[in-house]
Amino acid sequence: MRAVDLIRKKRDSLEHSREEIDFLISGYTRGEIPDYQVSAWLMATWIRGLSGAEIASLTEAMLHSGEIITFPELPGKKVDKHSTGGVGDKTSLILAPIVAAGGVNVPMISGRGLGHTGGTLDKLESIPGFNTALSLVEFRNVLSKCGMALIGQTAEIAPADKKIYALRDVTSTVENIGLICASIMSKKLAEGIDALVLDVKTGSGAFLQKEEDSVRLAELMVDTARRMGKKSVALITDMDQPLGRFAGHSHEVIESIEVLRGRGAADLCELSIELSAWMFFLGERTKSVDEGRVLAANLIASGEALEKFRVSIRLQSGDARVIDDYTRLPQARHRKEIKSRSNGYLSATNCMEFGVALAMLGGGREKKEDTIDPGVGLEFHKRIGDRSATGEILVTIFYNSDAQLPEAVERIENSFSFSDQPVPRKKLVRRLIGA
Amino acid sequence: MRAVDLIRKKRDSLEHSREEIDFLISGYTRGEIPDYQVSAWLMATWIRGLSGAEIASLTEAMLHSGEIITFPELPGKKVDKHSTGGVGDKTSLILAPIVAAGGVNVPMISGRGLGHTGGTLDKLESIPGFNTALSLVEFRNVLSKCGMALIGQTAEIAPADKKIYALRDVTSTVENIGLICASIMSKKLAEGIDALVLDVKTGSGAFLQKEEDSVRLAELMVDTARRMGKKSVALITDMDQPLGRFAGHSHEVIESIEVLRGRGAADLCELSIELSAWMFFLGERTKSVDEGRVLAANLIASGEALEKFRVSIRLQSGDARVIDDYTRLPQARHRKEIKSRSNGYLSATNCMEFGVALAMLGGGREKKEDTIDPGVGLEFHKRIGDRSATGEILVTIFYNSDAQLPEAVERIENSFSFSDQPVPRKKLVRRLIGA
Repeated sequence: MRAVDLIRKKRDSLEHSREEIDFLISGYTRGEIPDYQVSAWLMATWIRGLSGAEIASLTEAMLHSGEIITFPELPGKKVDKHSTGGVGDKTSLILAPIVAAGGVNVPMISGRGLGHTGGTLDKLESIPGFNTALSLVEFRNVLSKCGMALIGQTAEIAPADKKIYALRDVTSTVENIGLICASIMSKKLAEGIDALVLDVKTGSGAFLQKEEDSVRLAELMVDTARRMGKKSVALITDMDQPLGRFAGHSHEVIESIEVLRGRGAADLCELSIELSAWMFFLGERTKSVDEGRVLAANLIASGEALEKFRVSIRLQSGDARVIDDYTRLPQARHRKEIKSRSNGYLSATNCMEFGVALAMLGGGREKKEDTIDPGVGLEFHKRIGDRSATGEILVTIFYNSDAQLPEAVERIENSFSFSDQPVPRKKLVRRLIGA
Repeated sequence: MRAVDLIRKKRDSLEHSREEIDFLISGYTRGEIPDYQVSAWLMATWIRGLSGAEIASLTEAMLHSGEIITFPELPGKKVDKHSTGGVGDKTSLILAPIVAAGGVNVPMISGRGLGHTGGTLDKLESIPGFNTALSLVEFRNVLSKCGMALIGQTAEIAPADKKIYALRDVTSTVENIGLICASIMSKKLAEGIDALVLDVKTGSGAFLQKEEDSVRLAELMVDTARRMGKKSVALITDMDQPLGRFAGHSHEVIESIEVLRGRGAADLCELSIELSAWMFFLGERTKSVDEGRVLAANLIASGEALEKFRVSIRLQSGDARVIDDYTRLPQARHRKEIKSRSNGYLSATNCMEFGVALAMLGGGREKKEDTIDPGVGLEFHKRIGDRSATGEILVTIFYNSDAQLPEAVERIENSFSFSDQPVPRKKLVRRLIGA
């Protein structure tokens, strides 16, 4: 078998066998097939597409390129959640403590933010001392002590995906649902989980903006998980506006703690409970999703979920005092209010632009090498359907450097649309796939 | 400008500006853009295609990546020929001496063989001592002494093409007429020529097997040459069967000398005179192509063309005694005859298979690193339209190693088709483009 022939095959729209995909992926991981052949294959794949069988083969090949964690010592089910990302999406920080407090283990391997989306690891690292770079041994240890652990992708987990993702990033071959599905699933299936809840975002702040694309990706991922013997459902959820009231690292940690205190924005509470409920149900902790919702709400009300978060921060070397003293988190020195220039009902936002503006202010990464200023953030005062009079505050910007402030302000200002007529509220959970 | 954005643009079927193509090609040549980005761009280009304007920009960018030779010291016109290659195509060895003997300079930069096609450089190197690796100074010197010089692509000529071609070869992005046109023309236009005659092969032994593809490539190349201020025509010629009676390096040198002696196969003589005539006409040596045909025939009949070849071999350090003593060329030790198992008229050949079989026997390269056994060859006894009785010899194989002989024999045997009904002869020059 030769890589050049497999490139030709995909170029000519033919379907690969499992053996061919294994050859490509294992050869690339071992350094026997060079970057330039894989990038040509990725472009052919991006344009010609992958069949369901090819996606399954690719997922398995990437999964088996590294270690698959198992937890024979750990009683109880292991369940994880994965979100395709958006602006203000901090549910991992909320649901992991809820679900762990309910007795289901959450071994969560997360990513970093890039472009307009934030990353769970980056948000956690705004907590002084918090260590996301645990070894697999430490990961296992934290998980066994408190039922949850949050780390970054290690060198042992799906190294093929790590290598391929870096190549896709610089060759404009990222946005292809087959490649996205295999990339996500190969990492998640390496976590030794029994079930996986998927939160696939759709709308102006999502990676996939069209609902049909999000649905197709969700179906592929649920299929792939089930073929691998894992329970799985996907929620297609709204990203036409930011999730919750805040975006930005410290601000999102604070907002997550607020939700765990029984406060916080309604949409964020709703989605956190919804996802937790599905995790309880798939983890066989409750007999129904409804029962899962009640359990999640009770774990918040009793303070057990917040307590779980406190313990997990300590176990990952973080300063758990942030929970009671938000000033221990990095803060921005300046604030600027953006006021409405229109009078009417907020009808739409170009949500991705908020994430881009945040990154411009230092609260995100434009390039992978960028460092993040965790104190920078945005507070959103209005939601789609809200009335807003001229002069009312739409967004508060928390910033340190004003180097790119004018451009960020302009982007934010131009990302709101208003209507004279009342506008219906957005439905948060748009569809359920695989339930 | 960023390479990743240009890859995305071509991936999305958009047209590049001249500046964008310059950025890619000059950045790649300088080593600032890595292989893996260019290979992704090449695949997107292969699939999405290039417009006429993009091909012109690409040709110019590759041309200007290196040196453009000029010959201010050399009186008279400079004319070259380029063939897209096939099996048994040795016309360069014949027409260069004819045209130089007629007073038109032929500064010819040639390539090596790969796969089923042979290369002019490899054929010349079967002459003991013949040096094709001249520096540009030596090239200029030989050319001024005898009006012809044959060398390989030097580091100074279109280095971008050299680098890109090597990448295309290993990423299955070779067979795209836009990329082929730019690759050929960037090298040929660097030769400092006034005119270029193109021999675009079509049929079962050609790179482009469908006549419409060959015509489209011919049109693109003629257009590109003219936009650069060069006279140009293209002949679409038959490659449904080998050109001449022999394929294989020593054998083709001998056959070329035979044609220059006024002997040799009819089709090979015809095409050599036809191409020479067009070179005379475009080089303004004759007032018509007809007059060029007469001149070419006279230069053969008078022995002047053969004499020119002898001088040029000496000037490039070759053993010119091969002209009178073919045994000084490498020879194969064994021969095997392949006899017809059918009775009828030869109706078609799968011509590419002859080239593949020849390479398997050592008389060509399967991979670029392979060394060639110049004595290995094939002699073709029948042409399409000929009658052949069962048991008549179709092909004589001249070989040294029998390691892959059985497979080569099988390939050759399976490449002949016969008909009960008389079959018309193939027309050699199928079409003329740009005349």
